[in-house]
Amino acid sequence: MNGVRVGSQTIAFPSCPRLIAMHTVVGKQEGQGPYAEYFHEILADDLLGQKTPEKAERQILEQTIDQALRKQGLVPQDIQYYVGGDLLNQVISTVFSARSLEVPFLGIFSACGTFSQGLGLASVLLQGGFADKVLVATSSHYQTAERQYRYPIELNVQHVSTNQHTVTGAGACVLAADGEGPKITHATFGKVVDMGLKNPNDMGSAMAPAALATLEQHLADTGRSPDYYDLILTGDLGRQGLKMLRILAEKKNLQLNNVADGGALIYGDNPKFGAGASGAACSAVMTLGYVNTQLFLGKLHKVLLIGTGAMLNQLTIQQGESIPTIAHAAAIEA
Amino acid sequence: MNGVRVGSQTIAFPSCPRLIAMHTVVGKQEGQGPYAEYFHEILADDLLGQKTPEKAERQILEQTIDQALRKQGLVPQDIQYYVGGDLLNQVISTVFSARSLEVPFLGIFSACGTFSQGLGLASVLLQGGFADKVLVATSSHYQTAERQYRYPIELNVQHVSTNQHTVTGAGACVLAADGEGPKITHATFGKVVDMGLKNPNDMGSAMAPAALATLEQHLADTGRSPDYYDLILTGDLGRQGLKMLRILAEKKNLQLNNVADGGALIYGDNPKFGAGASGAACSAVMTLGYVNTQLFLGKLHKVLLIGTGAMLNQLTIQQGESIPTIAHAAAIEA
Repeated sequence: MNGVRVGSQTIAFPSCPRLIAMHTVVGKQEGQGPYAEYFHEILADDLLGQKTPEKAERQILEQTIDQALRKQGLVPQDIQYYVGGDLLNQVISTVFSARSLEVPFLGIFSACGTFSQGLGLASVLLQGGFADKVLVATSSHYQTAERQYRYPIELNVQHVSTNQHTVTGAGACVLAADGEGPKITHATFGKVVDMGLKNPNDMGSAMAPAALATLEQHLADTGRSPDYYDLILTGDLGRQGLKMLRILAEKKNLQLNNVADGGALIYGDNPKFGAGASGAACSAVMTLGYVNTQLFLGKLHKVLLIGTGAMLNQLTIQQGESIPTIAHAAAIEA
Repeated sequence: MNGVRVGSQTIAFPSCPRLIAMHTVVGKQEGQGPYAEYFHEILADDLLGQKTPEKAERQILEQTIDQALRKQGLVPQDIQYYVGGDLLNQVISTVFSARSLEVPFLGIFSACGTFSQGLGLASVLLQGGFADKVLVATSSHYQTAERQYRYPIELNVQHVSTNQHTVTGAGACVLAADGEGPKITHATFGKVVDMGLKNPNDMGSAMAPAALATLEQHLADTGRSPDYYDLILTGDLGRQGLKMLRILAEKKNLQLNNVADGGALIYGDNPKFGAGASGAACSAVMTLGYVNTQLFLGKLHKVLLIGTGAMLNQLTIQQGESIPTIAHAAAIEA
């Protein structure tokens, strides 16, 4: 069965690729939040005894992938493609995990929106008949992200209330043409949106317009109202970005009764984490942990994941550029 | 028509996506080499009057895309997806070009192998019926790459003979389900290969095993011998990497009579450029400039592009990691 273009920016997957295997791992602090029970594994030591957080991040990712496969009795040879990326320069954690896996690798990058881009691309490969099993995985680590994007942790720089805290963890899943599990019904790949915001300490506000643009396009393409979904899960706008999304939606008379943001949820209301979480792992663990469990329990039936990414780097901030952002949506049904 | 999996790692495209539009831009030094006549545009000033090379790189990329579209009377609204990436952290040049283009963007990363990954993914989108026109583009710039991956240019660090010189330039093309132009018949997406080499001043040797692995897999999957192709164009191994590829192939009794490397060709024998060129733009401009012209003239008929990437970053070298590499192949016929 062939791919079906719906409207101008959405792809329907009539073959309904299934999430047949998944695993999530989070760090200590994520494991103390209100969603802890939904994650498959909580680390006792975010560094796993490694010398550097970079080594720890890639080991977390490798272990997550290993568990996702193992639980379903899969081996790497069963997988045709590994689609993945992460926040680090040259998506290096994912590259290292692909090295140990020895599966054809398609490196992707959408910052914290990488997971939803991966779900969409994997579904394209399955729907088109190019594969029957595709692995999608991503990771992030508070310590690696802080020192790459912000400051060395040792400096103990004061954070502001709009700052987001990078999730330590990883999520991995296998999408398959056949099997049991939640299905991906649609993907809406987003455009790069940049409203001119320049504050790297408020990426949520920068990303909100991209989330809204992709949501509006998805609804227009599919002819659905927001209420078609039990949950529209953005990630990761944090509390500040979610507030902006609501304001922007209201201006367009778009009623959003069922929107939540993974970054705003994962740490609860703890002010220590500023506006909440970010990190490529955040929407992966919230989707594969929380959403998947709710779909399994029949508490949710139809969920739209809108993964959002702030596509800045250290140099663009130093050079005074504004922050380009993107949002990719994937519709998931029980 | 659906995608056809061939062997374990190759995809055939029976619908034969066509390269219907293309443009290449190179810098001053590339414009003084033996392939100058094949490039569509040669810059008089690699900085385009910009304050920073980063701003120049993204402007080169934007102009290249604009020209590729304009020459065929295309506008961004004709394009369903933009698949692209570059060498800079967070593929920022491509992100900025996607911002001005306003086309759904799929960010990818395979270092200097990004262009062939893009050709493959675009062909998947077309073959699967998910799009009828996809833009693939990439860029690199000597000055942005030097200061990100090596040293500030102002330090004037002495290069060694195995060093490669990053191409300044960009290549952009539109692949379409219908139209006139060379066709993409197959893609072979590679696995990450790491033989333990750690010398960032000899990335050609690190990448050669990945190039060979993808070539061997492509030949096994398609049942072809290397002589099926008039030209197997690797890029960018440089002279050193090409030498290693020949040695490795010989050990496996694989006769390679028709292999050339874009990085080894673009500057000629000028020792100033070490082992030759690298850079994501290199295989793009050699394919869309040189190969395309030879296909048009009937001097080449069947070409296998094997784009190679060294997936290192500054921190992995500092942390003593070896260099993971990848190679993606795309078969192009007149």
